[in-house]
Amino acid sequence: MNERIRHTPFLDRLRTAEQAAGLIHPGDTVAMSGFTGAGYPKAVPGALAERIQRAHAQGLPFQVRVLTGASTAPELDGVLARANGIELRLPYQSDPVVREQINRGELDYLDIHLSHVAQHAWFGYFGKIDVAVVEVTGVLEDGRLVPSSSVGNNKTWLEQADRVILEVNRWQPAALEGMHDIYYGTALPPDRKPIPLLRPDDRIGEPYLRVDPAKVVAVVETDAPDRNSAFSPPDEASRAIAGHLLEFLDHEVRRGRLTPQLLPLQSGVGNIANAVLAGLAEGGYRGLTAFTEVIQDGMLTLLREGVLRMASATSFSLSPEGIAEFNRDVDFYRERIVLRPQEMSNHPELIRRLGCIAMNGMIEADIYGHVNSTHVAGTKIMNGIGGSGDFARNGYLSVFMSPSTAKGGAISSIVPMASHVDHTEHDVMVLVTEQGLADLRGLSPKQRARLVIGRCAHPEFRPMLQDYFDRACRDSFGKHAPHLLGEALSWHDRFVRTGSMKP
Amino acid sequence: MNERIRHTPFLDRLRTAEQAAGLIHPGDTVAMSGFTGAGYPKAVPGALAERIQRAHAQGLPFQVRVLTGASTAPELDGVLARANGIELRLPYQSDPVVREQINRGELDYLDIHLSHVAQHAWFGYFGKIDVAVVEVTGVLEDGRLVPSSSVGNNKTWLEQADRVILEVNRWQPAALEGMHDIYYGTALPPDRKPIPLLRPDDRIGEPYLRVDPAKVVAVVETDAPDRNSAFSPPDEASRAIAGHLLEFLDHEVRRGRLTPQLLPLQSGVGNIANAVLAGLAEGGYRGLTAFTEVIQDGMLTLLREGVLRMASATSFSLSPEGIAEFNRDVDFYRERIVLRPQEMSNHPELIRRLGCIAMNGMIEADIYGHVNSTHVAGTKIMNGIGGSGDFARNGYLSVFMSPSTAKGGAISSIVPMASHVDHTEHDVMVLVTEQGLADLRGLSPKQRARLVIGRCAHPEFRPMLQDYFDRACRDSFGKHAPHLLGEALSWHDRFVRTGSMKP
Repeated sequence: MNERIRHTPFLDRLRTAEQAAGLIHPGDTVAMSGFTGAGYPKAVPGALAERIQRAHAQGLPFQVRVLTGASTAPELDGVLARANGIELRLPYQSDPVVREQINRGELDYLDIHLSHVAQHAWFGYFGKIDVAVVEVTGVLEDGRLVPSSSVGNNKTWLEQADRVILEVNRWQPAALEGMHDIYYGTALPPDRKPIPLLRPDDRIGEPYLRVDPAKVVAVVETDAPDRNSAFSPPDEASRAIAGHLLEFLDHEVRRGRLTPQLLPLQSGVGNIANAVLAGLAEGGYRGLTAFTEVIQDGMLTLLREGVLRMASATSFSLSPEGIAEFNRDVDFYRERIVLRPQEMSNHPELIRRLGCIAMNGMIEADIYGHVNSTHVAGTKIMNGIGGSGDFARNGYLSVFMSPSTAKGGAISSIVPMASHVDHTEHDVMVLVTEQGLADLRGLSPKQRARLVIGRCAHPEFRPMLQDYFDRACRDSFGKHAPHLLGEALSWHDRFVRTGSMKP
Repeated sequence: MNERIRHTPFLDRLRTAEQAAGLIHPGDTVAMSGFTGAGYPKAVPGALAERIQRAHAQGLPFQVRVLTGASTAPELDGVLARANGIELRLPYQSDPVVREQINRGELDYLDIHLSHVAQHAWFGYFGKIDVAVVEVTGVLEDGRLVPSSSVGNNKTWLEQADRVILEVNRWQPAALEGMHDIYYGTALPPDRKPIPLLRPDDRIGEPYLRVDPAKVVAVVETDAPDRNSAFSPPDEASRAIAGHLLEFLDHEVRRGRLTPQLLPLQSGVGNIANAVLAGLAEGGYRGLTAFTEVIQDGMLTLLREGVLRMASATSFSLSPEGIAEFNRDVDFYRERIVLRPQEMSNHPELIRRLGCIAMNGMIEADIYGHVNSTHVAGTKIMNGIGGSGDFARNGYLSVFMSPSTAKGGAISSIVPMASHVDHTEHDVMVLVTEQGLADLRGLSPKQRARLVIGRCAHPEFRPMLQDYFDRACRDSFGKHAPHLLGEALSWHDRFVRTGSMKP
């Protein structure tokens, strides 16, 4: 008896990763599991990469189109990119090799709102999905699947793909069973119904993924850890940013615009997000909720301390210590964490209904509050927009945060004109740097500019920004959102030519 | 007995427009009715403007902050702007005097997604609302209000304002009674519930607006027509654009991605929208629905012919002939038209659920598919984003349309880099000009650029765009979305300096 694979027909379909990879063909659209380095297939992508390399060595073309939940890991994006095996990639990535290939113009990358991916697949906008490669924790007797450490788009991949390859990863805690909430009430328009979720806690679906067993062409057993990003303690700038944001939230509570329980928190991944979460704990907040994409180490601590009452997400992104902590008291966490498909964790309907407080990082913002989340100097993709658009557009509050400078002070994250816009003036309410916070609600472009320059810009760049703004107000063609078109992108141009935005 | 004002306590509050305007004070935030030149107050704004002018003549400061549904008319925006009476204006305008003042930098304008306005008022983001000035068709015995030819934000203004001034406009057909559907199930987070609307036809509220009678400080009787934009028949470019779009929709139906009933249509206002609607009729479509903002003349014809089964909107924008047609058979139209508050007509939850086909005009798009809906040469506001973001982000399809050139061919509406971004690459699926249509779904930035240049650009600008793109692909810092930063906005800069984008 196989503890993890209880559906006996699947035992006949046990294959090696190499055998399973043999079922993927050149030109296939391959939809894989994985979100923020969790729950991605560990073995088949590597075997596929080797197969691709052998084909290339024989002069044969072999590339696939790779769809995922979000970012994965070197064992998926890294190996496939190194083998020059990816023709097209969507909807989010953070792998250095993939990024390098995209920015050399060798790999086509589609950056998509994470809430759009599943439905665009249902609508047929990505063409036919040939193969799904999905990691699961186990298979029940009746063939239903216990999801792994992320849900992402797995429901959609399993439904839409012609063939399914399952990786059953023994390393994933069996205790994950029961944590997931897979909503099967979705439909295509015009048959859609309201999504019956009223609180971040609500369970509206089933704890298991369904798959048509007839489509499962291979089952591969693995025993390999998730990427397990190391947790780094917040640095000084992150703590300063968190401090400004906490002061703002306190103010909103005092003004009666928020209750002491705030509203469901969405926070991006990384240093600043961790600092904000830590700040909420120190600030005495209790009984909060999270309706977000990713559960990080910091959230486990907050759940443990009662700062967070519960957290809804689509994925874990824990350090090895975080995983150890999770495994130490999995029953405690299972009652307080729900993992959903990403079309639910990021659904505009739910984010607007719940009134999330959206807190995301950015690359840069311009003086009028347009935010660039994705492109360095307007042309090089960093990772992707992820869910920041889903949350910023539909949340109760939309906050974007960044240190005011990068590259040792050579780059200002407050610029005259954003070199790429992912979040327009219409969707950006609050900007925060370690210098301060600009509350842009209810302000016109020029009113915003004065605040952004005065509160958020680094003192070394502030006079340059003020000078640009003053001259733009004097000389601009239109004076609603004044710009000097010949100069608006000159800071980025200078950075590209000299490595610094400073003259 | 006053046929239009049946709530007798209001008869004691009958005032002249001048008396009512006397209840509005310098610095007040005044929330007015009005959407696309329909249902705006006809008398009080003019009286207020005169009062403001008298104050200014005496050297006294007098300005107010003006909030509406969307655009109004010379009798509101025009007179107040001419009196220099507007300190701040939101969320959409199309008045030449207001626009001129905004672009001279004299008037602060906030451009806001139309679906955001009501909730941002509830959240307190615009501060206290002192006065609401709302046109209605009549008042019932119990004080409930028969809405006028637009609903807009009136529910919110009546609820949020400290004082209410009603204009009861006898010119509005009494037969409007029963056409409206005012949903009172809204709430603030965390108490929001799913909105129980499943079809564009569904009525989920009441036909009347509620108001606390104690807040009504004045009732003014008027008898004045709406702005009544003239209907101009589609020109050649509009018909060509419509032709490309219709061919695309036919193709989607043949591919099985749409049924012959399509999905609920949203279409902007104007020439191109009218041509598209006419094209649907000629193309043999029947039994369609509209879930949109504005009912134009064209829609009445389509309803009459059965091309449209019904239409949901928040406002009328009819020509005098359209109004005559409407009045000729108001019972027919009342059964087939629903007017909703704009937070419902534009609600992300509903647009995504229904899967609207969003068709909007644009000022320009760049080769990567970023769309500028609002700013000429990046700095001069035209009207505002309106509902285009609500529909483009959440619809089943998002289409943006424009002639490929403007100003007699001096301006290309396809540019290297958009000078202002209202709709990011993530939200733009289809671009159409009279030259052709670019279906951007599932394409990476460089794949998009090839299509946009090849299909949508005007032949006079196509070689310049191709040359820019080729050199950018060769020389750009990053090659994901290649740009030459020193040149990206040079077309706009040239236009500002010379009046033409041509070298």
